[in-house]
Amino acid sequence: METRNIFQNISPIDHRYSISEKALFDSLSAWISEEASIASCVKAEIALVIAHLSVRGSLTPALKSALEEAGAKIDPAEVYAEEEKTKHNIRALVNVLKTKVPPETAPLVHLGATSVDILDTALSYRMTGVTREVVLPLLKKLELLLCDFAEREAETPQVGRTHGQHAVPITLGFALAEYVSRLGKSILEIQRLSGQLKGKLAGAVGAYNATSMIVKDPEELERLYLAGLGLEASEHSTQLVEPEYLLRLLLEFNVAFGIIANLADDLRNLQRSEIGELREGFSADQVGSSTMPQKRNPWNSEHVKSLWKAFMPRVTSFFMDQISEHQRDLSNSASQRFIADYAAGFCLAVSRMASVIRGLGADRERLLRNLRGETGIPGGVLAEPAYILLAETGVSDAHEVIRKITLTAEKENISFAAALTKEGDVLSRIGGKMAELGLVASASDALSFFEKPERYCGLAVKKAKTLSAKYRQLMRNEE
Amino acid sequence: METRNIFQNISPIDHRYSISEKALFDSLSAWISEEASIASCVKAEIALVIAHLSVRGSLTPALKSALEEAGAKIDPAEVYAEEEKTKHNIRALVNVLKTKVPPETAPLVHLGATSVDILDTALSYRMTGVTREVVLPLLKKLELLLCDFAEREAETPQVGRTHGQHAVPITLGFALAEYVSRLGKSILEIQRLSGQLKGKLAGAVGAYNATSMIVKDPEELERLYLAGLGLEASEHSTQLVEPEYLLRLLLEFNVAFGIIANLADDLRNLQRSEIGELREGFSADQVGSSTMPQKRNPWNSEHVKSLWKAFMPRVTSFFMDQISEHQRDLSNSASQRFIADYAAGFCLAVSRMASVIRGLGADRERLLRNLRGETGIPGGVLAEPAYILLAETGVSDAHEVIRKITLTAEKENISFAAALTKEGDVLSRIGGKMAELGLVASASDALSFFEKPERYCGLAVKKAKTLSAKYRQLMRNEE
Amino acid sequence: METRNIFQNISPIDHRYSISEKALFDSLSAWISEEASIASCVKAEIALVIAHLSVRGSLTPALKSALEEAGAKIDPAEVYAEEEKTKHNIRALVNVLKTKVPPETAPLVHLGATSVDILDTALSYRMTGVTREVVLPLLKKLELLLCDFAEREAETPQVGRTHGQHAVPITLGFALAEYVSRLGKSILEIQRLSGQLKGKLAGAVGAYNATSMIVKDPEELERLYLAGLGLEASEHSTQLVEPEYLLRLLLEFNVAFGIIANLADDLRNLQRSEIGELREGFSADQVGSSTMPQKRNPWNSEHVKSLWKAFMPRVTSFFMDQISEHQRDLSNSASQRFIADYAAGFCLAVSRMASVIRGLGADRERLLRNLRGETGIPGGVLAEPAYILLAETGVSDAHEVIRKITLTAEKENISFAAALTKEGDVLSRIGGKMAELGLVASASDALSFFEKPERYCGLAVKKAKTLSAKYRQLMRNEE
Amino acid sequence: METRNIFQNISPIDHRYSISEKALFDSLSAWISEEASIASCVKAEIALVIAHLSVRGSLTPALKSALEEAGAKIDPAEVYAEEEKTKHNIRALVNVLKTKVPPETAPLVHLGATSVDILDTALSYRMTGVTREVVLPLLKKLELLLCDFAEREAETPQVGRTHGQHAVPITLGFALAEYVSRLGKSILEIQRLSGQLKGKLAGAVGAYNATSMIVKDPEELERLYLAGLGLEASEHSTQLVEPEYLLRLLLEFNVAFGIIANLADDLRNLQRSEIGELREGFSADQVGSSTMPQKRNPWNSEHVKSLWKAFMPRVTSFFMDQISEHQRDLSNSASQRFIADYAAGFCLAVSRMASVIRGLGADRERLLRNLRGETGIPGGVLAEPAYILLAETGVSDAHEVIRKITLTAEKENISFAAALTKEGDVLSRIGGKMAELGLVASASDALSFFEKPERYCGLAVKKAKTLSAKYRQLMRNEE
Repeated sequence: METRNIFQNISPIDHRYSISEKALFDSLSAWISEEASIASCVKAEIALVIAHLSVRGSLTPALKSALEEAGAKIDPAEVYAEEEKTKHNIRALVNVLKTKVPPETAPLVHLGATSVDILDTALSYRMTGVTREVVLPLLKKLELLLCDFAEREAETPQVGRTHGQHAVPITLGFALAEYVSRLGKSILEIQRLSGQLKGKLAGAVGAYNATSMIVKDPEELERLYLAGLGLEASEHSTQLVEPEYLLRLLLEFNVAFGIIANLADDLRNLQRSEIGELREGFSADQVGSSTMPQKRNPWNSEHVKSLWKAFMPRVTSFFMDQISEHQRDLSNSASQRFIADYAAGFCLAVSRMASVIRGLGADRERLLRNLRGETGIPGGVLAEPAYILLAETGVSDAHEVIRKITLTAEKENISFAAALTKEGDVLSRIGGKMAELGLVASASDALSFFEKPERYCGLAVKKAKTLSAKYRQLMRNEE
Repeated sequence: METRNIFQNISPIDHRYSISEKALFDSLSAWISEEASIASCVKAEIALVIAHLSVRGSLTPALKSALEEAGAKIDPAEVYAEEEKTKHNIRALVNVLKTKVPPETAPLVHLGATSVDILDTALSYRMTGVTREVVLPLLKKLELLLCDFAEREAETPQVGRTHGQHAVPITLGFALAEYVSRLGKSILEIQRLSGQLKGKLAGAVGAYNATSMIVKDPEELERLYLAGLGLEASEHSTQLVEPEYLLRLLLEFNVAFGIIANLADDLRNLQRSEIGELREGFSADQVGSSTMPQKRNPWNSEHVKSLWKAFMPRVTSFFMDQISEHQRDLSNSASQRFIADYAAGFCLAVSRMASVIRGLGADRERLLRNLRGETGIPGGVLAEPAYILLAETGVSDAHEVIRKITLTAEKENISFAAALTKEGDVLSRIGGKMAELGLVASASDALSFFEKPERYCGLAVKKAKTLSAKYRQLMRNEE
Repeated sequence: METRNIFQNISPIDHRYSISEKALFDSLSAWISEEASIASCVKAEIALVIAHLSVRGSLTPALKSALEEAGAKIDPAEVYAEEEKTKHNIRALVNVLKTKVPPETAPLVHLGATSVDILDTALSYRMTGVTREVVLPLLKKLELLLCDFAEREAETPQVGRTHGQHAVPITLGFALAEYVSRLGKSILEIQRLSGQLKGKLAGAVGAYNATSMIVKDPEELERLYLAGLGLEASEHSTQLVEPEYLLRLLLEFNVAFGIIANLADDLRNLQRSEIGELREGFSADQVGSSTMPQKRNPWNSEHVKSLWKAFMPRVTSFFMDQISEHQRDLSNSASQRFIADYAAGFCLAVSRMASVIRGLGADRERLLRNLRGETGIPGGVLAEPAYILLAETGVSDAHEVIRKITLTAEKENISFAAALTKEGDVLSRIGGKMAELGLVASASDALSFFEKPERYCGLAVKKAKTLSAKYRQLMRNEE
Repeated sequence: METRNIFQNISPIDHRYSISEKALFDSLSAWISEEASIASCVKAEIALVIAHLSVRGSLTPALKSALEEAGAKIDPAEVYAEEEKTKHNIRALVNVLKTKVPPETAPLVHLGATSVDILDTALSYRMTGVTREVVLPLLKKLELLLCDFAEREAETPQVGRTHGQHAVPITLGFALAEYVSRLGKSILEIQRLSGQLKGKLAGAVGAYNATSMIVKDPEELERLYLAGLGLEASEHSTQLVEPEYLLRLLLEFNVAFGIIANLADDLRNLQRSEIGELREGFSADQVGSSTMPQKRNPWNSEHVKSLWKAFMPRVTSFFMDQISEHQRDLSNSASQRFIADYAAGFCLAVSRMASVIRGLGADRERLLRNLRGETGIPGGVLAEPAYILLAETGVSDAHEVIRKITLTAEKENISFAAALTKEGDVLSRIGGKMAELGLVASASDALSFFEKPERYCGLAVKKAKTLSAKYRQLMRNEE
């Protein structure tokens, strides 16, 4: 067993992030390290021997146990030592395995298989496993935290923003419900796609040449082999499983990654000094800057965005790996190994985002003050209903009338409500309409509406609650 | 109406390829040009007026017709002229439209909507349309051509190749069936996803603020509006429809694009001077090179690959467009317009590939000679069965024994069969096993097997036929 | 001459942006449209005939003029019509050209050349031209506007921000000088690289096979040919010019694009409602939102960012186009045509950014209020000097002492200066140090420093002025 | 010191490739592992203390040694343990370092610096180091191997290929000289750019706020600090060094990567069974396939191509990292750490390619037979000179005449020379022209030319020799 000081590793995944997210690293390593990769190939080779025995009618429970025990004994270092000689990783594994299995089964080891029958099958096995055992539980944890937050803040007034400018009111829970909805659907899609990875036992060029000589029904042998690993067969194979089964899963990972990156951007913007509506958890002793003692940076959200920048573009490699000439070339071999890095990078982002949401604080007072324009921001978030109501009274240039009132408010540095009172005719028309619609008791109450913009938030509360309830249920159903 | 000499356009889509693929260009232009884009927004605005009338119970067939006629009268140039003034494209459209509709409906134009309620809905409408009316028919045409080719050549022997090296035999139809299977599944997926694009009428920040003031059930109004365009509502909206509905469709376009690029690579390699198994159609007068009169280049396949290189990486933009800050920023606006270019580039590649397959010729004699090693290539494509059969007789280092025989064949420049006869013991063991398996009549016939490698092709023929039959049926079902 | 309603074009470059930036579109079209492309090939073919005549000693001024006139007569439509027959664009051009030149020179047309001797040379000619005549003047205009802005606002106090949080003071001119410096260097690099594009006349595989039979010194013929177009020869050629000359220019375009995108992000963030330090020019009648009359969005900056999202990832195609098999394959042919789109997209962004900077307004009052923490933002931008000064007095945990004072300020919602006065001992130590350093007249004046954070801006003013002066000079030198 | 079984690492760089390229991994780890990263930060902190002492006039040789020794004692694990507390990596390093340096210098540790003054400077230091000590030596080794190969095979006839089709003759050395020329220039560019990375000591927002309080000339302090690390200052800084200095170096790495990937594609195609002109070194015992004993795959060239697919697209991340908001955000922090992976991936490819070239064998007999069309390939590689010579005699449709002769040759499966003899008039015209040009002794010898196509190779030999001599010299000058 060769060991190394982890600080001598080159990839941040194997040094810095393996420390900061130790538990996550260990659970990933159990599925997608080189050790796990070899173990999954051993598992596949054993499943093949069992399938052969089964076809021949000579499988016994004892033999099955003996084979599985033999597989468990393989040490990666031994395989690597053998590869030094063969210059071929699967041939090396086969050589080692033959010395461990019950002797009568040795001739069945790898029988009829080409290397990729093992490798591609083992890859699907590992990716199914890491998706179900690591990725999905992480994502669901994040989704449930988002549901909780969205529900808790479902009624907390916030100003809606478009183009970074105040638009019309929403609630904080509604804003977060966006991510409940988008991420929730992506999780369900990842779940679906994780059940569709395939394996193969179709031989060197996918035509079952070898197995056709060995057994009567080579497709039946393939089914038995793959069933042992919980997989089904690729509809057509070359030397490789069709690349699109895995590609679609990785693309959906990247879809979820983009959703989380969008959330990260929103969170860090809402933590700007001038906005201050949210704040990441910050421990009492934590230092924000080595030189500026006052700093409390939204560094976890920034970190998530940064991971997205590092990993998102790698889908281009996945798309390039669709191309393999004729019945295969090897130009996908090295590149495909880095799927492990990608999966790790994605999980690191999800995990960090979960810890951000868990510790996320909302400053409800600041939220309300921002919405009401009490923090030095020219108001106008109710210009929209003013325009609509005025238009409903039959004023054809209502949009322009109200736009001018917002300019007055800005120029004189007064609130929109105050500017509105200066235009008595406009206000009374609007008030009349509001009374008609039952929005205020009488036309003269119109101003009370414009002084409390938080009332104009449409279905925000309802959507926040409905969506968090729905996805909480869905996440639990799927557990 | 402003016109331009098409050779003054900058994008190759609008000059060179609009000529070389005129019919395709026209069908795309009908869906995704600027004219089509404005027309789809008009359609959405009219649908909104109709929904309002419907809610109010004042929709009559005559009014509906009048509105639809009004919409059909809008000229993009008029809208652009108005935009000069407003600096806002939807406000410009609304201003123009109001002058065309029956006067009593003018106040309902755009009522309660924010620009993106129209724009995003219209985009989904156009993308659904272009996918169903242009992309899918093109893809299905290609798929059916592939089915025909795979079936026609299902029994044509070909050497299977891995790493560009001769491996074991397949059939040409089997090789093409790979693409029948991969592309077929992608087509079905595109079909599924094209039914899932969404629209919205949720207002400036997605919370139905405005429509909540106007109607009792704003979600009902949204449903009516979208139903008029054959769409459903985004589960959650900000100012934008959730970006993932469209993203997944575009990603699947790119998946199909990669499959076609892989096919293109295979085709051009099989047309190499030294291989010569396939040939693109070439007209009698065609010039391959301005200076080398003998040249007949696989330029259509190269063209398809080149389009993939130009367009595949653009998915990175699509992933970047997932991110829009808060309830939206505008940083997706220009980038999203180039989805039209991407769709056009993809269709150009599909169309070109269809014409390649339609004219593709197979040189069956050359295919057989290559397989049999009669074109000066050291043989060995039956080393695999030799090894397996020998191993089945209990020889533990069978792989190594046969590997040495292939080296002899190569060194002495003789066929693998000839080299095998030099090793009488090996040959008789193999022959015995073959007789036992019923592959030859008697052990002494073994050589006849090794002289005709085309017999060793496993399930190639069956797979080619099954897959082409299956997908031909599926393509027709879906029509 | 075939014309088309521009609204029927598919690429936004050829419809929407050709209208909104008409002058720019026309200047680009003059260099990189299909018409310009054919014209440049004609120019190359004529240069070749002239080179042949020159080698043969039979070039006369009259003949030269006649040839150049003949070239000017070629109509792209005629070439396209001929290509219908030849299926080969350069052969078509040659056929047409032969009918226009003085008859005695017709046999010299294209003599010894392969198509790409013309095509790659013409591409370098066009890219040199568009870079020098369109791209660089646009970039320099932007750079000079940035120099003006940075100089004008060199002394305008602004709060420096890291992680979106207030850090320490700078000036607005200093902030803009970042882009003066970064963009300035990129412009100089683009200028350098635009002088390094190459042509070739090395024939079908780059070995001068054909010209070696025709002239004594084929490299001399190549030099003469290229000199006629202001180019030099690729050091080695296959059928193609080495791809890296052009690649490096395009990469530097993308570097400049990234700088401008970064600027766009800064500008739109500084226009957020809560920050309000800058504002894009906005005409009096302009509508910000179809439904929210108060909106004034930073849409031009968003537009620039969006163009970057659409075009930046295309460098991946440029890198893929480095690969051409053996002496060339055609898989770069279609993809390379889209360099025109990329160049147009880049220019559109530069031009838009120039118009943003030209109209950009700074709200100096808001800038100062934000810096001083008068807009409801907890202060602390002078925590750094407080910590440094305190440390200089020998307090070893100065960072921690000051960090606690910032927490007090935040908790009690008072200014940092106010919180500092509560810690008399700390303040007097700091004051003593300041007096010692000559920062204040006496230790008791310390508070005056902390109340006017704008004084603590280091070399910001100097850097802003120096850099704008330097690059203004450099831009003018290069004109 | 925490260690880990290397097979439990996730990134292939830290398991598989750290074994297969152990020496390379170790040399990379010495520069770009986490250990190296911390060591470089320590080096920077020490350089800062020395610069402070130097400004104060109190630097002694003894103090300098003591400081450097103190730096050498820092253990990464100790820093990580401290970071657990501070949650800030540089603050942790500073805390640890203060306990190691001579006590009188402790107050100078990190004085006036912000974290990034250390981090960005240290990054430039590491990247300069790894480029000069690892990347460039590797690249030069490869370049010299290419020079040797190109020179050795300068006169070896080979058929030139375009579109995978036989074109006209070249030599094998000329084909390789393409890469000598392209890679050579890229190496010189990498060398140039590696001398241009910058550091900074400009503080939290780049305006020298803090150092302006501490020393009279903060730019002088910055110069002294950076000189200690062999660097100069970024022309403008925010909290960060301008990103383009490093970006351009990484882009040029990617340019070189593309050149090597192109070479890899050429090599693996020339090893196809049907072409067989080149062969990667293959040890006697090596196994090509676990199931096909005859296989000898060009797997090293495929591996290089695969690494390119994995790493090339990562430039998109580098371009995204140009954007940092205002005076910086942290969204470049995680992504930038993966530059180490990229550099490692690039070096792995270069190293593997060097070993391919070192062991590359050329089958000169096969090369000649392919060129002469003796391997069953229809000839025609001399159609070009036949056309040119015929045209020179005044035949205006010479191209078409010769094209038809190539069709005859193909149809009747005879050589081009044989087909030519059937057209006596054409042959005698060509012969006459050849005699006139001194290519053959008399017109009747024409056929001898067409039977030996290798003579028609233009300047191939000369270019191969000139370029290899030139770049061999340049590589040595630069050592």
